[in-house]
Amino acid sequence: MRVFIAGVDGYLGWTLAMYLTARGYEVAGADCYCRRDWVAEMGSQSATPIRRMTERLQAFRENFGTNLKFIRGDMTDYNFVWNFFRSFEPEAIVHLAEMPSAPYSMIDIDHCTFTHTNNLLGTLNVLHAMRDTCPGAHLVKLGTMGEYGTPNIDIPEGFFEIEYRGRKDVLPFPKQAGSWYHQTKVHDTHNVMMACRLWGLRSTDIMQGVVFGTRIDEMGEDQRLVTRLDFDQCFGTAINRYCAQCVVGMPLTPFGKGHQKRGFLPLRDSMQCLTLAIENPPEAGEYRVFNQFEEVYDLTEVALKVRNVAAGLGLTVDVRNVENPRTEPEEHYYNPDRKHLVDLGYRPSGNIEAEIEATLRDLMQYKGRIEARAHALVPDIRWDGSRRKVAYLK
Amino acid sequence: MRVFIAGVDGYLGWTLAMYLTARGYEVAGADCYCRRDWVAEMGSQSATPIRRMTERLQAFRENFGTNLKFIRGDMTDYNFVWNFFRSFEPEAIVHLAEMPSAPYSMIDIDHCTFTHTNNLLGTLNVLHAMRDTCPGAHLVKLGTMGEYGTPNIDIPEGFFEIEYRGRKDVLPFPKQAGSWYHQTKVHDTHNVMMACRLWGLRSTDIMQGVVFGTRIDEMGEDQRLVTRLDFDQCFGTAINRYCAQCVVGMPLTPFGKGHQKRGFLPLRDSMQCLTLAIENPPEAGEYRVFNQFEEVYDLTEVALKVRNVAAGLGLTVDVRNVENPRTEPEEHYYNPDRKHLVDLGYRPSGNIEAEIEATLRDLMQYKGRIEARAHALVPDIRWDGSRRKVAYLK
Repeated sequence: MRVFIAGVDGYLGWTLAMYLTARGYEVAGADCYCRRDWVAEMGSQSATPIRRMTERLQAFRENFGTNLKFIRGDMTDYNFVWNFFRSFEPEAIVHLAEMPSAPYSMIDIDHCTFTHTNNLLGTLNVLHAMRDTCPGAHLVKLGTMGEYGTPNIDIPEGFFEIEYRGRKDVLPFPKQAGSWYHQTKVHDTHNVMMACRLWGLRSTDIMQGVVFGTRIDEMGEDQRLVTRLDFDQCFGTAINRYCAQCVVGMPLTPFGKGHQKRGFLPLRDSMQCLTLAIENPPEAGEYRVFNQFEEVYDLTEVALKVRNVAAGLGLTVDVRNVENPRTEPEEHYYNPDRKHLVDLGYRPSGNIEAEIEATLRDLMQYKGRIEARAHALVPDIRWDGSRRKVAYLK
Repeated sequence: MRVFIAGVDGYLGWTLAMYLTARGYEVAGADCYCRRDWVAEMGSQSATPIRRMTERLQAFRENFGTNLKFIRGDMTDYNFVWNFFRSFEPEAIVHLAEMPSAPYSMIDIDHCTFTHTNNLLGTLNVLHAMRDTCPGAHLVKLGTMGEYGTPNIDIPEGFFEIEYRGRKDVLPFPKQAGSWYHQTKVHDTHNVMMACRLWGLRSTDIMQGVVFGTRIDEMGEDQRLVTRLDFDQCFGTAINRYCAQCVVGMPLTPFGKGHQKRGFLPLRDSMQCLTLAIENPPEAGEYRVFNQFEEVYDLTEVALKVRNVAAGLGLTVDVRNVENPRTEPEEHYYNPDRKHLVDLGYRPSGNIEAEIEATLRDLMQYKGRIEARAHALVPDIRWDGSRRKVAYLK
């Protein structure tokens, strides 16, 4: 099957290209290296020493015996998208080319605007180019569990049947995102849903939890194949940032009370789930939603897990709460479903401690790279538009 | 009170400037004349012979004894918005500067993209500039009843309390828009709601029905004060288009089965409602939704009303259904609330036939202007992306 990956230079995109190629898929991808620029703008770098694309592609060919069909280009350029789809004729399109950071989108009006144009226009281009060149293809679109916010009721997968004033309907679950980035994902969700209804396109919208981890087995030992691992305040996710903090001996820093609950999953599970979606496409005109995570934890719980695993490796760090730079509920109800992927055969790898240990071991090799950018670990982007480094709460 | 109107050269904006000034408000406004360009792009023109802004402003001064503080500028230019807010210090901001046409947004990827950038970036600029220059001001944001789509349950005003799996919450009502334009309004709704929650801004989001009519009393007899009245397939709304069709002797053309139900209100009621919202601002941090319409009719019902009123004026036309260029349910449940405005004192003018008659009498004066662009009355923009003039169904 021909799979096109938008954002193939990224954390998930590069990993997925290897995961799918190892399973016999014909993979093409596009990227404009934005993520490298955004992380540099934050004064940071990937903890793992990722290679330039030319070297990545060479290593890919040597390890997998086939080319990754790569073209440098921006998904917000319609002609680029149209031409790529027209020539490659993808059967599945995995859209990972969005700006993925909540804090980055909250910096100022320019970053807010950029997040909107990059994310929305890229997705609108994909939808129009699909309609006009490959209407039977399956769009696997990456959303986020953050689209739902933290309602006081269970979170179904995309839709729910409700009764209101004596009448019933099945409706999209209401979205209550908490940052401009999360809003752009909500907007995309609405746009993709409508394109399926109006144009008969088919799409799986993945509401993904927080991914962590450095590796999948398919990377093997070739250092040129490592995927990026960010730890800065914008592009690092919770567990990855905790692991980076351990490696440089900084306290682990949950925000505020630290009882925000989130769904988490290791990188290898994310690959498993995306592939299950690709292997089991929806019907023409169908828009379906998968909540994609392994387990729900609160941010202090995972900090303690990371601390304990790190202690076993001789890395001794505290957990110290810091001011919350975000405006968000720090204690709340949270009970999302995640049945659709399990029904398709998702088997959670299930050992979060083992995954954290592997991540710590990988990152310990790159301690110098994290130390060189350790300042990027401390958040200063606040949800009120100011920039002030967070202080410890006690 | 100082009121800033974004889109003050438009159908509602120009009318509102007069309505508010006559009531003692200090009014400023901005526009970049986009609407004039869009209608020209559709090969059409306003049925009413609207004047250039310089002449409008002169007539405004002569009739109202005060200046309308006008600056030409684009709401998607952040510096323009910031500077205007900083110097005028608005207490209320009425945002009417969005591209308001569903068919226009469906033409192709360029029009879809333009609709997204114009509408979303303009609103994001307003929100950021409010936060940074006038956080206590009240944003009156024009949405549309079309954001809700046509669910099989009652439509509350923005929020509803629901029970799901034994737990309760008050949630935003799910949105199911049917065009890219309507989606941009949904996106704005989410963005404005979040800005109120995060930044303590206050906003009234107006889910407005379909407005019709040529005039309000405040326009008097000065022809230089008329507001625009569009009848082309993109910028003309149902009753206004029917009236234009009567005047040039064309059949009135409901789409498809013609049983789509919509909320309608005359231009004068729209002014009354917007002013009620301005006079009764919400609390800081409050985001509230008003459903703004007078009465629900189906598209055939209003066509018959227009036909009957027209017959009384000696204009004899048929009602003939045409192919539906849109993809939408042509028969559906529809029962939206509109309690909030009534609670604030909204008194519907209540006589739709009288309003239609006034509109027809006004348009009869401009028969030549409509005839000159009669081709623009026939839709050819289809929801599948093609352009083909609609045919009569029988």
